[in-house]
Amino acid sequence: MPKIKKLLILGPGLLGGSLGLAAKRHEIAKEVAIWGRNEESLRFAISIGAADTASLDIANAARDAQIVVFATPTRVFEQLASQVCAYLPKQAVVTDVGSVKLRACEVMDQKFPGRFIGAHPMAGAEKSGITNARAELFENATCILTPTDKHSDYALSEIENFWSSLGCRVVHMSPNEHDLAVAYFSHLPHLLAAALVNSTLPHAPARWKNIPGPGFRDTTRVASGPPQMWSEILTDNRANLASAIAQFLTALEQISSALRNDDPQPLEKLLRSAKQLREEIFLNNTLS
Amino acid sequence: MPKIKKLLILGPGLLGGSLGLAAKRHEIAKEVAIWGRNEESLRFAISIGAADTASLDIANAARDAQIVVFATPTRVFEQLASQVCAYLPKQAVVTDVGSVKLRACEVMDQKFPGRFIGAHPMAGAEKSGITNARAELFENATCILTPTDKHSDYALSEIENFWSSLGCRVVHMSPNEHDLAVAYFSHLPHLLAAALVNSTLPHAPARWKNIPGPGFRDTTRVASGPPQMWSEILTDNRANLASAIAQFLTALEQISSALRNDDPQPLEKLLRSAKQLREEIFLNNTLS
Repeated sequence: MPKIKKLLILGPGLLGGSLGLAAKRHEIAKEVAIWGRNEESLRFAISIGAADTASLDIANAARDAQIVVFATPTRVFEQLASQVCAYLPKQAVVTDVGSVKLRACEVMDQKFPGRFIGAHPMAGAEKSGITNARAELFENATCILTPTDKHSDYALSEIENFWSSLGCRVVHMSPNEHDLAVAYFSHLPHLLAAALVNSTLPHAPARWKNIPGPGFRDTTRVASGPPQMWSEILTDNRANLASAIAQFLTALEQISSALRNDDPQPLEKLLRSAKQLREEIFLNNTLS
Repeated sequence: MPKIKKLLILGPGLLGGSLGLAAKRHEIAKEVAIWGRNEESLRFAISIGAADTASLDIANAARDAQIVVFATPTRVFEQLASQVCAYLPKQAVVTDVGSVKLRACEVMDQKFPGRFIGAHPMAGAEKSGITNARAELFENATCILTPTDKHSDYALSEIENFWSSLGCRVVHMSPNEHDLAVAYFSHLPHLLAAALVNSTLPHAPARWKNIPGPGFRDTTRVASGPPQMWSEILTDNRANLASAIAQFLTALEQISSALRNDDPQPLEKLLRSAKQLREEIFLNNTLS
Protein backbone atom coordinates (compact mmCIF):
# COMPACT_ATOMS: atom_id res chain seq x y z
CA MET A 1 0.00 0.00 0.00
CA PRO A 2 1.35 3.45 -0.91
CA LYS A 3 2.35 5.41 2.20
CA ILE A 4 1.74 8.81 0.62
CA LYS A 5 -1.85 9.86 -0.08
CA LYS A 6 -1.07 12.63 -2.52
CA LEU A 7 2.16 13.57 -4.27
CA LEU A 8 2.12 16.91 -6.08
CA ILE A 9 4.54 17.61 -8.92
CA LEU A 10 4.89 21.21 -10.06
CA GLY A 11 6.05 21.43 -13.67
CA PRO A 12 5.33 18.82 -16.36
CA GLY A 13 8.77 18.74 -18.01
CA LEU A 14 11.32 15.95 -18.48
CA LEU A 15 11.99 15.64 -14.74
CA GLY A 16 8.42 16.27 -13.57
CA GLY A 17 7.04 13.74 -16.05
CA SER A 18 9.70 11.16 -15.22
CA LEU A 19 9.04 11.66 -11.50
CA GLY A 20 5.36 10.95 -12.06
CA LEU A 21 6.09 7.81 -14.08
CA ALA A 22 8.57 6.57 -11.47
CA ALA A 23 6.18 7.32 -8.60
CA LYS A 24 3.44 5.34 -10.34
CA ARG A 25 5.77 2.44 -11.15
CA HIS A 26 7.04 2.21 -7.57
CA GLU A 27 3.51 2.80 -6.23
CA ILE A 28 4.73 5.35 -3.75
CA ALA A 29 1.58 7.52 -3.71
CA LYS A 30 -2.13 6.84 -3.93
CA GLU A 31 -2.60 9.93 -6.05
CA VAL A 32 0.02 11.58 -8.22
CA ALA A 33 -1.11 15.10 -9.07
CA ILE A 34 0.61 17.40 -11.54
CA TRP A 35 0.30 21.15 -11.91
CA GLY A 36 1.51 23.28 -14.79
CA ARG A 37 0.74 26.30 -16.93
CA ASN A 38 0.63 24.43 -20.24
CA GLU A 39 -2.57 22.47 -20.79
CA GLU A 40 -1.08 20.37 -23.56
CA SER A 41 1.78 19.14 -21.33
CA LEU A 42 -0.69 18.31 -18.57
CA ARG A 43 -2.85 16.34 -20.98
CA PHE A 44 0.26 14.50 -22.17
CA ALA A 45 1.22 13.71 -18.56
CA ILE A 46 -2.15 12.07 -18.00
CA SER A 47 -2.02 10.21 -21.31
CA ILE A 48 1.31 8.49 -20.51
CA GLY A 49 0.27 7.71 -16.93
CA ALA A 50 2.69 10.17 -15.32
CA ALA A 51 -0.13 11.53 -13.14
CA ASP A 52 -3.61 10.58 -11.97
CA THR A 53 -4.85 14.15 -11.88
CA ALA A 54 -3.67 17.32 -13.59
CA SER A 55 -4.63 20.92 -12.93
CA LEU A 56 -3.95 24.46 -14.07
CA ASP A 57 -5.27 25.67 -10.71
CA ILE A 58 -2.68 25.73 -7.94
CA ALA A 59 -5.26 25.82 -5.09
CA ASN A 60 -6.89 22.69 -6.40
CA ALA A 61 -3.55 20.94 -7.02
CA ALA A 62 -2.16 21.75 -3.54
CA ARG A 63 -5.19 20.52 -1.59
CA ASP A 64 -4.27 17.54 0.66
CA ALA A 65 -0.78 17.15 -0.87
CA GLN A 66 1.70 15.42 1.47
CA ILE A 67 4.81 15.81 -0.64
CA VAL A 68 5.38 18.60 -3.16
CA VAL A 69 8.18 18.55 -5.73
CA PHE A 70 9.17 21.77 -7.47
CA ALA A 71 10.22 20.62 -10.95
CA THR A 72 10.07 24.05 -12.62
CA PRO A 73 12.98 26.36 -13.43
CA THR A 74 14.42 27.71 -10.12
CA ARG A 75 13.73 31.28 -11.29
CA VAL A 76 9.99 30.83 -10.67
CA PHE A 77 10.40 29.13 -7.23
CA GLU A 78 9.80 32.30 -5.22
CA GLN A 79 6.59 33.32 -6.96
CA LEU A 80 5.24 29.80 -7.18
CA ALA A 81 6.08 29.04 -3.54
CA SER A 82 4.09 32.11 -2.45
CA GLN A 83 1.10 30.83 -4.38
CA VAL A 84 1.24 27.20 -3.30
CA CYS A 85 2.00 28.03 0.34
CA ALA A 86 -1.51 29.29 1.09
CA TYR A 87 -3.21 26.06 0.04
CA LEU A 88 -0.77 23.44 1.29
CA PRO A 89 -1.53 21.37 4.42
CA LYS A 90 0.75 22.36 7.34
CA GLN A 91 2.26 18.85 7.46
CA ALA A 92 3.28 18.76 3.79
CA VAL A 93 7.00 18.51 3.03
CA VAL A 94 8.62 20.12 0.02
CA THR A 95 11.54 19.23 -2.23
CA ASP A 96 12.80 20.21 -5.69
CA VAL A 97 15.01 19.07 -8.56
CA GLY A 98 17.05 22.23 -9.13
CA SER A 99 20.64 22.08 -10.38
CA VAL A 100 21.92 25.00 -8.26
CA LYS A 101 21.03 25.00 -4.58
CA LEU A 102 22.37 27.91 -2.50
CA ARG A 103 19.96 30.66 -3.55
CA ALA A 104 17.01 28.27 -4.07
CA CYS A 105 17.38 26.83 -0.55
CA GLU A 106 17.44 30.34 0.94
CA VAL A 107 14.20 31.18 -0.85
CA MET A 108 12.48 27.92 -0.02
CA ASP A 109 13.60 27.84 3.65
CA GLN A 110 11.88 31.19 4.00
CA LYS A 111 8.67 30.08 2.29
CA PHE A 112 8.49 26.63 3.89
CA PRO A 113 10.33 26.95 7.21
CA GLY A 114 11.54 23.57 8.50
CA ARG A 115 9.80 21.54 5.82
CA PHE A 116 11.88 22.10 2.69
CA ILE A 117 14.75 19.77 1.74
CA GLY A 118 16.54 20.69 -1.49
CA ALA A 119 17.33 17.84 -3.84
CA HIS A 120 19.31 17.42 -7.02
CA PRO A 121 18.77 14.07 -8.72
CA MET A 122 21.80 13.69 -11.02
CA ALA A 123 19.67 12.48 -13.89
CA GLY A 124 18.72 14.18 -17.08
CA ALA A 125 19.13 13.96 -20.78
CA GLU A 126 19.98 16.27 -23.62
CA LYS A 127 16.37 15.87 -24.78
CA SER A 128 14.08 17.94 -22.58
CA GLY A 129 10.30 18.11 -22.22
CA ILE A 130 7.72 15.66 -20.94
CA THR A 131 7.63 13.83 -24.29
CA ASN A 132 11.05 12.42 -23.32
CA ALA A 133 10.03 11.40 -19.78
CA ARG A 134 11.07 7.90 -18.65
CA ALA A 135 10.11 5.98 -15.50
CA GLU A 136 13.67 4.65 -15.12
CA LEU A 137 15.40 8.07 -15.24
CA PHE A 138 16.13 7.98 -11.50
CA GLU A 139 17.18 4.33 -11.14
CA ASN A 140 20.63 4.25 -9.51
CA ALA A 141 21.04 7.98 -10.05
CA THR A 142 22.81 9.87 -7.29
CA CYS A 143 20.40 12.28 -5.60
CA ILE A 144 22.10 15.01 -3.58
CA LEU A 145 20.00 16.27 -0.67
CA THR A 146 21.01 19.68 0.68
CA PRO A 147 19.43 20.06 4.13
CA THR A 148 20.20 23.39 5.83
CA ASP A 149 20.18 24.18 9.56
CA LYS A 150 16.51 25.12 9.08
CA HIS A 151 15.24 21.60 8.36
CA SER A 152 13.15 19.41 10.68
CA ASP A 153 14.11 15.75 11.15
CA TYR A 154 10.62 14.77 10.01
CA ALA A 155 11.02 16.61 6.69
CA LEU A 156 14.46 15.11 6.10
CA SER A 157 13.33 11.56 6.74
CA GLU A 158 10.21 11.95 4.55
CA ILE A 159 12.14 13.47 1.66
CA GLU A 160 15.00 10.98 1.95
CA ASN A 161 12.49 8.10 1.81
CA PHE A 162 10.81 9.68 -1.17
CA TRP A 163 13.96 9.90 -3.30
CA SER A 164 15.21 6.46 -2.21
CA SER A 165 11.92 4.85 -3.11
CA LEU A 166 12.29 6.21 -6.67
CA GLY A 167 15.54 4.25 -7.01
CA CYS A 168 18.03 7.02 -6.20
CA ARG A 169 21.22 6.69 -4.17
CA VAL A 170 20.85 9.54 -1.69
CA VAL A 171 23.84 11.58 -0.43
CA HIS A 172 23.88 14.70 1.76
CA MET A 173 25.76 17.96 1.22
CA SER A 174 25.46 21.57 2.20
CA PRO A 175 24.00 23.78 -0.58
CA ASN A 176 27.40 25.45 -0.87
CA GLU A 177 29.34 22.23 -1.26
CA HIS A 178 26.77 20.94 -3.73
CA ASP A 179 27.12 24.00 -5.93
CA LEU A 180 30.91 23.66 -5.97
CA ALA A 181 30.84 19.93 -6.79
CA VAL A 182 28.41 20.34 -9.69
CA ALA A 183 30.39 23.31 -11.01
CA TYR A 184 33.26 20.85 -11.54
CA PHE A 185 31.42 17.73 -12.65
CA SER A 186 28.38 19.01 -14.47
CA HIS A 187 28.56 22.72 -15.30
CA LEU A 188 32.21 22.85 -16.42
CA PRO A 189 31.82 19.85 -18.80
CA HIS A 190 28.71 21.50 -20.26
CA LEU A 191 30.50 24.74 -20.92
CA LEU A 192 33.56 22.99 -22.42
CA ALA A 193 31.39 20.89 -24.70
CA ALA A 194 29.67 24.01 -26.02
CA ALA A 195 33.00 25.80 -26.49
CA LEU A 196 34.42 22.76 -28.32
CA VAL A 197 31.49 22.76 -30.76
CA ASN A 198 31.63 26.55 -31.25
CA SER A 199 35.39 26.48 -31.88
CA THR A 200 35.35 23.69 -34.47
CA LEU A 201 32.14 23.21 -36.45
CA PRO A 202 31.78 26.83 -37.70
CA HIS A 203 35.25 26.54 -39.28
CA ALA A 204 34.73 23.15 -40.91
CA PRO A 205 34.26 23.06 -44.69
CA ALA A 206 31.28 20.97 -45.85
CA ARG A 207 33.57 18.17 -47.06
CA TRP A 208 34.64 17.50 -43.44
CA LYS A 209 31.12 16.54 -42.42
CA ASN A 210 32.02 12.88 -41.90
CA ILE A 211 35.12 13.61 -39.85
CA PRO A 212 33.52 14.09 -36.42
CA GLY A 213 33.26 10.52 -35.12
CA PRO A 214 32.16 8.80 -31.91
CA GLY A 215 34.84 10.58 -29.84
CA PHE A 216 33.69 14.04 -30.85
CA ARG A 217 30.06 12.99 -30.53
CA ASP A 218 30.48 11.80 -26.93
CA THR A 219 32.76 14.63 -25.84
CA THR A 220 30.13 17.16 -26.97
CA ARG A 221 26.93 15.25 -26.14
CA VAL A 222 25.87 17.47 -23.25
CA ALA A 223 26.04 20.53 -25.54
CA SER A 224 22.71 19.35 -26.99
CA GLY A 225 20.96 20.14 -23.70
CA PRO A 226 18.21 22.81 -23.61
CA PRO A 227 19.98 26.21 -24.02
CA GLN A 228 17.58 28.32 -21.95
CA MET A 229 17.63 25.98 -18.96
CA TRP A 230 21.40 25.63 -19.12
CA SER A 231 22.11 29.33 -19.49
CA GLU A 232 20.09 29.89 -16.29
CA ILE A 233 21.87 27.08 -14.44
CA LEU A 234 25.35 28.25 -15.47
CA THR A 235 24.54 31.88 -14.66
CA ASP A 236 23.14 30.92 -11.24
CA ASN A 237 26.38 29.11 -10.42
CA ARG A 238 28.80 31.46 -12.12
CA ALA A 239 31.02 32.19 -9.11
CA ASN A 240 31.87 28.50 -8.59
CA LEU A 241 32.06 27.98 -12.31
CA ALA A 242 34.61 30.78 -12.66
CA SER A 243 36.90 28.89 -10.22
CA ALA A 244 36.35 25.65 -12.12
CA ILE A 245 37.21 27.34 -15.43
CA ALA A 246 40.37 28.78 -13.89
CA GLN A 247 41.45 25.34 -12.71
CA PHE A 248 40.67 23.84 -16.09
CA LEU A 249 42.82 26.48 -17.83
CA THR A 250 45.73 25.58 -15.55
CA ALA A 251 45.41 21.89 -16.46
CA LEU A 252 45.07 22.74 -20.16
CA GLU A 253 48.19 24.92 -20.05
CA GLN A 254 50.07 22.07 -18.37
CA ILE A 255 49.16 19.77 -21.26
CA SER A 256 49.81 22.45 -23.91
CA SER A 257 53.23 23.13 -22.48
CA ALA A 258 54.09 19.41 -22.43
CA LEU A 259 52.96 19.30 -26.06
CA ARG A 260 55.51 21.95 -27.02
CA ASN A 261 58.21 19.62 -25.70
CA ASP A 262 60.04 17.46 -28.24
CA ASP A 263 59.94 14.56 -25.83
CA PRO A 264 56.49 12.90 -25.68
CA GLN A 265 57.21 11.56 -22.14
CA PRO A 266 55.88 14.48 -20.02
CA LEU A 267 52.69 14.56 -22.12
CA GLU A 268 52.31 10.80 -21.76
CA LYS A 269 52.56 11.19 -18.00
CA LEU A 270 49.70 13.72 -17.95
CA LEU A 271 47.55 11.53 -20.19
CA ARG A 272 48.28 8.50 -18.03
CA SER A 273 47.25 10.38 -14.91
CA ALA A 274 43.96 11.38 -16.61
CA LYS A 275 43.27 7.78 -17.67
CA GLN A 276 43.97 6.42 -14.18
CA LEU A 277 41.94 9.07 -12.34
CA ARG A 278 39.00 8.56 -14.68
CA GLU A 279 39.08 4.79 -14.40
CA GLU A 280 39.10 4.92 -10.60
CA ILE A 281 35.69 6.56 -10.92
CA PHE A 282 34.11 4.81 -13.86
CA LEU A 283 35.44 1.27 -13.97
CA ASN A 284 34.28 0.48 -10.47
CA ASN A 285 30.72 1.68 -10.66
CA THR A 286 27.63 1.05 -12.73
CA LEU A 287 28.46 3.87 -15.13
CA SER A 288 31.48 2.17 -16.68
CA MET B 1 36.14 -15.85 -54.46
CA PRO B 2 38.58 -13.51 -52.67
CA LYS B 3 40.36 -11.23 -55.14
CA ILE B 4 43.47 -10.84 -53.00
CA LYS B 5 45.77 -13.82 -52.57
CA LYS B 6 47.61 -12.57 -49.53
CA LEU B 7 46.91 -9.65 -47.22
CA LEU B 8 49.71 -8.80 -44.78
CA ILE B 9 48.97 -6.91 -41.56
CA LEU B 10 51.93 -5.47 -39.67
CA GLY B 11 51.17 -5.06 -35.97
CA PRO B 12 48.76 -7.26 -33.99
CA GLY B 13 47.04 -4.48 -31.94
CA LEU B 14 43.42 -3.33 -31.72
CA LEU B 15 43.39 -2.09 -35.31
CA GLY B 16 45.56 -4.85 -36.80
CA GLY B 17 43.50 -7.54 -35.09
CA SER B 18 40.19 -5.95 -36.07
CA LEU B 19 41.43 -5.61 -39.67
CA GLY B 20 42.20 -9.32 -39.76
CA LEU B 21 38.80 -10.25 -38.35
CA ALA B 22 37.03 -7.93 -40.80
CA ALA B 23 39.06 -9.23 -43.75
CA LYS B 24 38.15 -12.82 -42.83
CA ARG B 25 34.47 -11.97 -42.33
CA HIS B 26 34.22 -10.17 -45.68
CA GLU B 27 36.36 -12.86 -47.34
CA ILE B 28 38.54 -10.32 -49.07
CA ALA B 29 41.77 -12.34 -49.06
CA LYS B 30 42.65 -15.99 -49.50
CA GLU B 31 45.33 -15.69 -46.88
CA VAL B 32 45.47 -13.13 -44.06
CA ALA B 33 48.99 -13.00 -42.65
CA ILE B 34 50.03 -11.09 -39.60
CA TRP B 35 53.49 -10.01 -38.49
CA GLY B 36 54.53 -8.70 -35.10
CA ARG B 37 57.28 -8.69 -32.50
CA ASN B 38 55.19 -10.15 -29.70
CA GLU B 39 54.66 -13.89 -29.98
CA GLU B 40 51.76 -13.92 -27.54
CA SER B 41 49.80 -11.35 -29.56
CA LEU B 42 50.45 -13.33 -32.73
CA ARG B 43 49.18 -16.51 -31.10
CA PHE B 44 46.11 -14.63 -29.89
CA ALA B 45 45.49 -13.33 -33.44
CA ILE B 46 45.45 -16.89 -34.76
CA SER B 47 43.27 -18.13 -31.91
CA ILE B 48 40.49 -15.60 -32.60
CA GLY B 49 40.67 -16.10 -36.36
CA ALA B 50 42.16 -12.68 -37.11
CA ALA B 51 44.82 -14.29 -39.31
CA ASP B 52 45.52 -17.55 -41.12
CA THR B 53 49.26 -17.31 -40.63
CA ALA B 54 51.43 -15.41 -38.17
CA SER B 55 55.14 -14.76 -38.20
CA LEU B 56 57.91 -13.05 -36.28
CA ASP B 57 60.01 -13.12 -39.48
CA ILE B 58 59.37 -10.18 -41.81
CA ALA B 59 60.91 -11.92 -44.88
CA ASN B 60 58.56 -14.83 -44.48
CA ALA B 61 55.55 -12.60 -43.81
CA ALA B 62 56.17 -10.35 -46.82
CA ARG B 63 56.54 -13.15 -49.37
CA ASP B 64 53.80 -12.97 -52.06
CA ALA B 65 51.81 -10.28 -50.18
CA GLN B 66 49.57 -8.21 -52.47
CA ILE B 67 48.36 -5.67 -49.94
CA VAL B 68 50.31 -4.61 -46.84
CA VAL B 69 48.79 -2.62 -43.99
CA PHE B 70 51.07 -0.86 -41.51
CA ALA B 71 49.12 -1.05 -38.23
CA THR B 72 52.06 -0.24 -35.95
CA PRO B 73 52.86 3.11 -34.30
CA THR B 74 53.95 5.58 -37.03
CA ARG B 75 57.29 6.04 -35.27
CA VAL B 76 58.48 2.63 -36.47
CA PHE B 77 57.24 3.06 -40.09
CA GLU B 78 60.62 4.12 -41.48
CA GLN B 79 62.61 1.26 -40.01
CA LEU B 80 59.93 -1.34 -40.69
CA ALA B 81 59.41 -0.12 -44.26
CA SER B 82 63.12 -0.55 -44.96
CA GLN B 83 62.95 -4.15 -43.75
CA VAL B 84 59.75 -5.17 -45.52
CA CYS B 85 60.69 -3.44 -48.78
CA ALA B 86 63.33 -5.96 -49.70
CA TYR B 87 60.96 -8.93 -49.60
CA LEU B 88 57.77 -7.46 -51.00
CA PRO B 89 56.63 -8.29 -54.57
CA LYS B 90 57.01 -5.29 -56.90
CA GLN B 91 53.25 -5.19 -57.52
CA ALA B 92 52.26 -5.04 -53.84
CA VAL B 93 50.40 -1.94 -52.67
CA VAL B 94 50.79 -0.48 -49.21
CA THR B 95 48.50 1.38 -46.79
CA ASP B 96 48.41 2.19 -43.08
CA VAL B 97 46.09 3.18 -40.23
CA GLY B 98 48.06 6.11 -38.75
CA SER B 99 46.29 9.04 -37.08
CA VAL B 100 48.70 11.73 -38.37
CA LYS B 101 49.55 11.66 -42.07
CA LEU B 102 51.91 14.38 -43.33
CA ARG B 103 55.22 13.01 -42.07
CA ALA B 104 54.19 9.36 -42.44
CA CYS B 105 53.21 9.87 -46.10
CA GLU B 106 56.56 11.54 -46.85
CA VAL B 107 58.41 8.55 -45.36
CA MET B 108 56.25 5.95 -47.06
CA ASP B 109 56.24 7.67 -50.48
CA GLN B 110 59.99 7.44 -50.39
CA LYS B 111 60.07 3.77 -49.37
CA PHE B 112 57.24 2.62 -51.66
CA PRO B 113 57.23 5.09 -54.56
CA GLY B 114 53.87 5.17 -56.35
CA ARG B 115 52.37 2.32 -54.37
CA PHE B 116 51.61 3.77 -50.95
CA ILE B 117 48.22 5.30 -50.11
CA GLY B 118 47.89 6.62 -46.54
CA ALA B 119 44.68 5.77 -44.75
CA HIS B 120 43.08 6.77 -41.47
CA PRO B 121 40.04 4.67 -40.58
CA MET B 122 38.15 6.79 -38.04
CA ALA B 123 37.54 3.84 -35.78
CA GLY B 124 39.03 2.97 -32.47
CA ALA B 125 38.17 2.53 -28.87
CA GLU B 126 39.55 3.57 -25.51
CA LYS B 127 40.46 -0.07 -24.97
CA SER B 128 43.56 -0.92 -26.98
CA GLY B 129 45.28 -4.21 -27.78
CA ILE B 130 44.30 -7.21 -29.87
CA THR B 131 42.23 -8.65 -27.01
CA ASN B 132 39.70 -5.89 -27.78
CA ALA B 133 39.67 -6.50 -31.57
CA ARG B 134 36.24 -6.63 -33.23
CA ALA B 135 35.32 -7.59 -36.81
CA GLU B 136 32.72 -4.78 -36.99
CA LEU B 137 35.09 -1.97 -35.95
CA PHE B 138 35.23 -0.58 -39.48
CA GLU B 139 31.54 -0.93 -40.44
CA ASN B 140 30.30 2.49 -41.58
CA ALA B 141 33.43 4.15 -40.24
CA THR B 142 34.78 7.03 -42.29
CA CYS B 143 38.17 6.10 -43.75
CA ILE B 144 40.21 9.09 -44.92
CA LEU B 145 42.60 8.25 -47.77
CA THR B 146 45.44 10.71 -48.26
CA PRO B 147 46.90 10.11 -51.74
CA THR B 148 49.82 12.40 -52.62
CA ASP B 149 51.05 13.43 -56.08
CA LYS B 150 53.32 10.37 -55.92
CA HIS B 151 50.55 7.75 -56.10
CA SER B 152 49.72 5.52 -59.09
CA ASP B 153 46.09 5.11 -60.16
CA TYR B 154 46.48 1.36 -59.71
CA ALA B 155 47.51 1.73 -56.06
CA LEU B 156 44.69 4.17 -55.33
CA SER B 157 42.05 1.93 -56.82
CA GLU B 158 43.37 -1.20 -55.05
CA ILE B 159 43.56 0.54 -51.66
CA GLU B 160 40.20 2.23 -52.09
CA ASN B 161 38.59 -1.14 -52.87
CA PHE B 162 40.31 -2.67 -49.87
CA TRP B 163 38.92 -0.17 -47.34
CA SER B 164 35.47 -0.10 -48.93
CA SER B 165 35.23 -3.86 -48.83
CA LEU B 166 35.82 -3.74 -45.05
CA GLY B 167 32.69 -1.61 -44.70
CA CYS B 168 34.30 1.84 -44.57
CA ARG B 169 32.98 5.02 -46.17
CA VAL B 170 36.04 6.27 -48.04
CA VAL B 171 36.82 9.98 -48.46
CA HIS B 172 39.92 11.65 -49.93
CA MET B 173 42.03 14.47 -48.50
CA SER B 174 45.57 15.74 -48.77
CA PRO B 175 47.77 14.69 -45.82
CA ASN B 176 47.87 18.35 -44.74
CA GLU B 177 44.13 18.82 -44.75
CA HIS B 178 43.67 15.50 -42.95
CA ASP B 179 46.01 16.52 -40.15
CA LEU B 180 44.18 19.83 -39.69
CA ALA B 181 40.72 18.21 -39.65
CA VAL B 182 41.69 15.57 -37.07
CA ALA B 183 43.40 18.23 -34.92
CA TYR B 184 39.95 19.80 -34.52
CA PHE B 185 37.71 16.75 -34.33
CA SER B 186 39.85 14.09 -32.69
CA HIS B 187 43.03 15.47 -31.13
CA LEU B 188 41.55 18.61 -29.52
CA PRO B 189 38.67 16.66 -27.87
CA HIS B 190 41.21 14.16 -26.53
CA LEU B 191 43.37 16.86 -25.00
CA LEU B 192 40.35 18.68 -23.49
CA ALA B 193 39.00 15.47 -21.98
CA ALA B 194 42.36 14.81 -20.31
CA ALA B 195 42.57 18.40 -19.04
CA LEU B 196 39.00 18.19 -17.70
CA VAL B 197 39.86 15.05 -15.72
CA ASN B 198 43.16 16.49 -14.46
CA SER B 199 41.51 19.74 -13.37
CA THR B 200 38.65 18.14 -11.42
CA LEU B 201 39.26 14.66 -10.02
CA PRO B 202 42.49 15.42 -8.12
CA HIS B 203 40.64 18.15 -6.17
CA ALA B 204 37.57 16.08 -5.35
CA PRO B 205 37.17 14.87 -1.76
CA ALA B 206 36.32 11.17 -1.45
CA ARG B 207 32.71 11.93 -0.54
CA TRP B 208 32.17 13.39 -4.04
CA LYS B 209 32.86 10.05 -5.71
CA ASN B 210 29.25 9.59 -6.83
CA ILE B 211 28.91 13.10 -8.25
CA PRO B 212 30.45 12.53 -11.71
CA GLY B 213 27.48 11.22 -13.71
CA PRO B 214 26.80 10.22 -17.32
CA GLY B 215 27.59 13.73 -18.61
CA PHE B 216 31.08 13.76 -17.09
CA ARG B 217 31.62 10.14 -18.10
CA ASP B 218 30.84 10.80 -21.78
CA THR B 219 32.63 14.15 -21.96
CA THR B 220 35.83 12.48 -20.70
CA ARG B 221 35.48 9.03 -22.33
CA VAL B 222 38.32 9.49 -24.82
CA ALA B 223 40.71 10.31 -21.96
CA SER B 224 40.79 6.57 -21.25
CA GLY B 225 42.65 5.91 -24.52
CA PRO B 226 46.19 4.45 -24.41
CA PRO B 227 48.50 7.23 -23.10
CA GLN B 228 51.64 6.29 -25.02
CA MET B 229 49.90 6.06 -28.37
CA TRP B 230 48.05 9.31 -27.80
CA SER B 231 51.06 11.27 -26.60
CA GLU B 232 52.81 10.29 -29.85
CA ILE B 233 49.79 11.21 -31.97
CA LEU B 234 49.30 14.58 -30.28
CA THR B 235 53.02 15.37 -30.44
CA ASP B 236 53.17 14.44 -34.14
CA ASN B 237 50.35 16.88 -34.88
CA ARG B 238 51.27 19.60 -32.43
CA ALA B 239 51.43 22.50 -34.89
CA ASN B 240 47.83 21.99 -36.04
CA LEU B 241 46.78 21.21 -32.50
CA ALA B 242 48.23 24.51 -31.26
CA SER B 243 45.93 26.37 -33.70
CA ALA B 244 42.98 24.26 -32.59
CA ILE B 245 43.72 25.02 -28.91
CA ALA B 246 43.95 28.74 -29.69
CA GLN B 247 40.56 28.67 -31.39
CA PHE B 248 39.08 26.71 -28.52
CA LEU B 249 40.37 29.29 -26.02
CA THR B 250 38.69 32.05 -28.02
CA ALA B 251 35.36 30.20 -27.93
CA LEU B 252 35.78 29.47 -24.22
CA GLU B 253 36.52 33.13 -23.46
CA GLN B 254 33.40 34.12 -25.41
CA ILE B 255 31.30 31.85 -23.19
CA SER B 256 33.11 32.91 -20.00
CA SER B 257 32.55 36.54 -20.79
CA ALA B 258 28.83 35.95 -21.48
CA LEU B 259 28.70 34.16 -18.14
CA ARG B 260 29.95 37.29 -16.34
CA ASN B 261 26.92 39.12 -17.73
CA ASP B 262 23.88 39.44 -15.44
CA ASP B 263 21.63 38.76 -18.39
CA PRO B 264 21.53 35.02 -19.33
CA GLN B 265 20.50 35.90 -22.93
CA PRO B 266 23.96 36.21 -24.56
CA LEU B 267 25.02 32.93 -22.95
CA GLU B 268 21.83 31.26 -24.10
CA LYS B 269 22.58 32.40 -27.65
CA LEU B 270 26.04 30.75 -27.56
CA LEU B 271 24.62 27.52 -26.10
CA ARG B 272 21.85 27.51 -28.72
CA SER B 273 24.40 27.89 -31.50
CA ALA B 274 26.40 24.95 -30.08
CA LYS B 275 23.30 22.77 -29.88
CA GLN B 276 22.24 23.60 -33.43
CA LEU B 277 25.69 23.12 -34.96
CA ARG B 278 26.09 19.79 -33.18
CA GLU B 279 22.70 18.51 -34.21
CA GLU B 280 23.32 19.35 -37.87
CA ILE B 281 26.13 16.80 -37.70
CA PHE B 282 24.79 14.11 -35.41
CA LEU B 283 21.04 13.96 -35.89
CA ASN B 284 21.28 13.34 -39.61
CA ASN B 285 23.78 10.53 -39.67
CA THR B 286 24.22 7.08 -38.24
CA LEU B 287 26.05 8.40 -35.18
CA SER B 288 23.03 10.17 -33.65
